[in-house]
Amino acid sequence: MENKISKFAPSDGFPKMPIIDGIELSSVNGKISKGAKLDLLLIKASKNSTITGLFTKSKTCSAPVDWSKKNLKKLQNTEKPIGIVVNSGNANVFTGSIGENTVNQTVLSVAQQLDTSAKNIFVASTGVIGEVLPAEKITSQISSLEKTLKENAFLSAAEAIMTTDTYPKGVCTTLSLGDTTIKINGIAKGSGMIAPNMATMLVFIFSDVSIEKDILQKIIARCNDISFNCITVDSDTSTSDSLFMIATGKAKMNKIESLKDPRAIKLEKHLAGLMLELAKLVIKDGEGITKFIEIIVKGAKSQKNAYKVAKSVAESPLVKTAIAGEDPNWGRVVMAIGKSGVKIAKKKISIFFGKHEVASNGSISKNYNELTVSKYMKNNSLIISIDLGQGERRTSVYTCDLTHDYISINADYKS
Amino acid sequence: MENKISKFAPSDGFPKMPIIDGIELSSVNGKISKGAKLDLLLIKASKNSTITGLFTKSKTCSAPVDWSKKNLKKLQNTEKPIGIVVNSGNANVFTGSIGENTVNQTVLSVAQQLDTSAKNIFVASTGVIGEVLPAEKITSQISSLEKTLKENAFLSAAEAIMTTDTYPKGVCTTLSLGDTTIKINGIAKGSGMIAPNMATMLVFIFSDVSIEKDILQKIIARCNDISFNCITVDSDTSTSDSLFMIATGKAKMNKIESLKDPRAIKLEKHLAGLMLELAKLVIKDGEGITKFIEIIVKGAKSQKNAYKVAKSVAESPLVKTAIAGEDPNWGRVVMAIGKSGVKIAKKKISIFFGKHEVASNGSISKNYNELTVSKYMKNNSLIISIDLGQGERRTSVYTCDLTHDYISINADYKS
Repeated sequence: MENKISKFAPSDGFPKMPIIDGIELSSVNGKISKGAKLDLLLIKASKNSTITGLFTKSKTCSAPVDWSKKNLKKLQNTEKPIGIVVNSGNANVFTGSIGENTVNQTVLSVAQQLDTSAKNIFVASTGVIGEVLPAEKITSQISSLEKTLKENAFLSAAEAIMTTDTYPKGVCTTLSLGDTTIKINGIAKGSGMIAPNMATMLVFIFSDVSIEKDILQKIIARCNDISFNCITVDSDTSTSDSLFMIATGKAKMNKIESLKDPRAIKLEKHLAGLMLELAKLVIKDGEGITKFIEIIVKGAKSQKNAYKVAKSVAESPLVKTAIAGEDPNWGRVVMAIGKSGVKIAKKKISIFFGKHEVASNGSISKNYNELTVSKYMKNNSLIISIDLGQGERRTSVYTCDLTHDYISINADYKS
Repeated sequence: MENKISKFAPSDGFPKMPIIDGIELSSVNGKISKGAKLDLLLIKASKNSTITGLFTKSKTCSAPVDWSKKNLKKLQNTEKPIGIVVNSGNANVFTGSIGENTVNQTVLSVAQQLDTSAKNIFVASTGVIGEVLPAEKITSQISSLEKTLKENAFLSAAEAIMTTDTYPKGVCTTLSLGDTTIKINGIAKGSGMIAPNMATMLVFIFSDVSIEKDILQKIIARCNDISFNCITVDSDTSTSDSLFMIATGKAKMNKIESLKDPRAIKLEKHLAGLMLELAKLVIKDGEGITKFIEIIVKGAKSQKNAYKVAKSVAESPLVKTAIAGEDPNWGRVVMAIGKSGVKIAKKKISIFFGKHEVASNGSISKNYNELTVSKYMKNNSLIISIDLGQGERRTSVYTCDLTHDYISINADYKS
């Protein structure tokens, strides 16, 4: 299986990211994953930084997730720097006490090297499940990683966290808050599985904004609901999904201390945009993708209902295979709406493929022209809109099609 | 796409079914589905029969489901016969008032022909979604269907309800209740989709047992929970799933009037066995199947937890593709356990592939031998057992693998 670059990879490559005052990064090939790729990343944030995070809801989550989740609840030592160690190639999941020991050793080693406390250190791993990850593989590299920390090393960081991703993923933005301009850089890895390993989503966002930890935590949780929680490749939940955001507070500004602060509102809006863009980059590298699909549900009674219906359609193997076959099979969309569990009124539902109304008021549209809609299905990016005709709420969920390449990636390639 | 018969089809073909006193059946080619196959079935049950049923939970269910569900709640006229009309080739789903009208016309026509009342008539349809099903297609055939009713026509009935099934499905059994022997015949159609249509599960069970309607309804609901609710091909829920059971009461026995009657208990046990066997026949004809898989979850705190974990593993595309590739990728089973939402203790989990322990106490098993387990994966039928180590409850869910043929059947074949 060739690791062919997704046709949806941005044509202008990885963005030119600015330095974020207070952030340094360093990557090496630690021989954890197969091949010569970078697979170990150290992130250092200067003292007085704030760190927040979100993690997978999996009950079989990795040892690093267990640690990071617990550690994040503690008050970090703001007199000291913060460190994050990330490796690809081994997820350190279902590895029992050996796995926990690897995390502990890693944390101690990094804390010592960065002259900080263990509660300032976070860990993330992605790769094979169930294989032991020896602590030495990481600890032996910490000293040289620390020596090579650089301010402008976002691209190599994005590469070091890749597993079967076909391109590095990054998005950056700046925004003015009062009379200062703050910067936000985000990198992510997604869901490609070529070796039959569980893929994982890892996201790291960096900013020089000055903000209270609790406020930032609330903001990223809300942004996550309308970005990373609105994408699905194959409905399988990783054991290792982690999102971290570090705010170094180096920008010249008074600290944001309230959600009602107009600067918090503006920050949230921009962060939501950046996270949604990153999330779309993850889908655009989904395994075997040939179509990038947006499912829009509007006219719902509640946001929750809109989301449930959109997710049900986006996760339906029958909808996804029909789209792979460029077949305007709107009957399968009807089926997926019906199985969502949301109470709907059949006769009020309308369905559009792009601008083409295929069904309205609970039956086939009078204007339905199979030839026209079949032609629309040949586009790389498709929009399916569903109007439930019940209310004012709407949402979008993003997904990709289900193709022979998905099967090849996940079935044909043996471990 | 050739309609190649599944390798799991019973080698001895459709069972030789006995006559059920009071049941008559008749099938024709009504030109509703493409090709020359039988696609219209009339079932007549003699007066004094009892009918019960279960239906899809889909909120976009078919017009026939809407009718049958509602009608079943009414008291049937026991002085008159019961009729069921079934067609394949068109599901009559999302067809608005035209679809409702087709059902109404069908019911009136059959009621008249069988000299019975409309509340004694039930309807089931399976096939394409969203296409109009003209009433005449059915009503024009009712008279000749009635004229050709036969007692021993279960095989042609099983054929008439097939869509993309590759073989007709039937199971029969007899059991002694007190000093009489009763008979039970069941036929089903399942989940094959070659034309890009939504597949459906239809099940019809016939018996000469004498039993109260409410008691039988409770029994089939419980049997359904451990049979048809324990199978999954691709996690998509049909708009048309329907199960009917008719008890003609012709056996020489006193009516069963209580769930505590030892005969009710015995009947339930046998019915559960028959329904599970029918359910397995459905999975064994799942689209693109190359492996028949049983997921056993034991050591659960509750039945609900066991079921949730088993379903999560059985529906995981990553588990199903790994099995298609004969890859003993137990890490994906760990992932699927974790995403089920059930609270588990990682360190108590053991996983077996067949008799081979692959993981125990939350990490890889000391006895794990990849070669041995890889060899096991080459079997046609596989058992994955998960012990949660938390309690005494257990369940089984049955599924098939996710293969290139599933994609071909559902994506490559255009409408």
